[in-house]
Amino acid sequence: MNTVAIVGVGLIGGSFALALRKAGFQGRIIGVSSPATIHKAFSRGVIDEALPLAEAASVADLVYLSQPISQIIETLKVLDTDALVTDAGSTKAVICETARKLKRGRFVGGHPMAGKESRGVEQADADLFRSRPYVLTSHEPELESWIERIGARLVFLEPADHDVTAAIVSHVPQLISTALAAELGATGGATQIAGPAAVDLTRLALSPYEIWEDIFATNAGPIQVALKLFISVLEGLGKQLNEPGMKREFLRAAKAAKELRQPPSEKD
Amino acid sequence: MNTVAIVGVGLIGGSFALALRKAGFQGRIIGVSSPATIHKAFSRGVIDEALPLAEAASVADLVYLSQPISQIIETLKVLDTDALVTDAGSTKAVICETARKLKRGRFVGGHPMAGKESRGVEQADADLFRSRPYVLTSHEPELESWIERIGARLVFLEPADHDVTAAIVSHVPQLISTALAAELGATGGATQIAGPAAVDLTRLALSPYEIWEDIFATNAGPIQVALKLFISVLEGLGKQLNEPGMKREFLRAAKAAKELRQPPSEKD
Repeated sequence: MNTVAIVGVGLIGGSFALALRKAGFQGRIIGVSSPATIHKAFSRGVIDEALPLAEAASVADLVYLSQPISQIIETLKVLDTDALVTDAGSTKAVICETARKLKRGRFVGGHPMAGKESRGVEQADADLFRSRPYVLTSHEPELESWIERIGARLVFLEPADHDVTAAIVSHVPQLISTALAAELGATGGATQIAGPAAVDLTRLALSPYEIWEDIFATNAGPIQVALKLFISVLEGLGKQLNEPGMKREFLRAAKAAKELRQPPSEKD
Repeated sequence: MNTVAIVGVGLIGGSFALALRKAGFQGRIIGVSSPATIHKAFSRGVIDEALPLAEAASVADLVYLSQPISQIIETLKVLDTDALVTDAGSTKAVICETARKLKRGRFVGGHPMAGKESRGVEQADADLFRSRPYVLTSHEPELESWIERIGARLVFLEPADHDVTAAIVSHVPQLISTALAAELGATGGATQIAGPAAVDLTRLALSPYEIWEDIFATNAGPIQVALKLFISVLEGLGKQLNEPGMKREFLRAAKAAKELRQPPSEKD
């Protein structure tokens, strides 16, 4: 792997470039992005050069699509390359199916489970992926090796399985947080006495809709299934508030919450 | 106010004692607790002396009930005093109604909206209440003055209004967190790729059931109403995932989440 094209040099794409460099990548890193972003990426030393998509794709060994989901799909439609192509979109089924139908060379879907409160190449960080899960939808030894070298934890999932799991661990939590914040906002005096519980649960509600629009557009089915399941669990708790079974529910939930907090080595 | 009896010298009672002292209280602070707790409270300098409830109540000007809710109710039943009595229970209607029926001198319900992950007098902290809301159910100038001197933010609420609001800002968030952790625990592979979203939303699921048992026993009605409202908001979001109205919902929720994070001075 001598030349990498990063298409969409934002937080994720910029961090991937910095992480590659830190892990010892000696080749060229080409940025494909808007002029303003390219300017910022150069000034932070994230990329070596900038090219339009077609030219970048024709010289790259790896094309890394780190745009919003809808733009990844648009890029796949015009991308002409024999290179290995991967992406960093938050849903996988629609993207992988698009790549498969269009026969875009060797495509491996990817999803680095990492992020920050703020976006943009200004926030790019060589350690963003360290110890975080990095989902790939199929095996590709050279890509796997670099993902391990940047310190991420490889997880293999079929696109549909990824989307079902992501609906539960990420998309439904977003809806919960948005719904709770809306309810708090509509309740007079609630913000006056709200404590850490409400603050914890409404942090996600600060996320910009722009990211979520694409996720909802490409994963509505699994989200609705996971949401229904969550609501039925929640209704179940509401019905047995003062019954002995409640203690068992709390113990079961606390066990899962603890597992979630264990370092990866203990999880495996 | 010369003598204060702290009944239940745990995190809250111990912190109230330390906060009073730090705020310049010169009188006696008497602890009423189990021998083991009294021993720890002495060794941390939280109390000046220890007495059984009846004796403490007969010499105190203020009796501060900082036990679990069910024990506060039991204490009220046996408490014989002309002193000002207040409590720190997380629900207010049942406690205030019990005090009213039993005519326990001058009773003012209280709820300091403060806490820590760990409990016990070992965690007591003179600054625990600083900048945090402290709900009182009625006016009592001397108590109000001390609550202000310990740095808390006074909020007056009728017992029933407190419980309805607490259901939304605290009790429903607990159920949400418990339900989500249970769902994550029951989904194979979920903990493997869960990120900060899932971690944020399942922190409350680590809370011990023992605290919640009393809250559910004394606030089931308001909790069920708030839960129903939350579920209907959440179902509404699920139904319009890909509709234009979703952006409006996100903006509305983000506004409320931001308000929640503003310092109190900007909220008023």
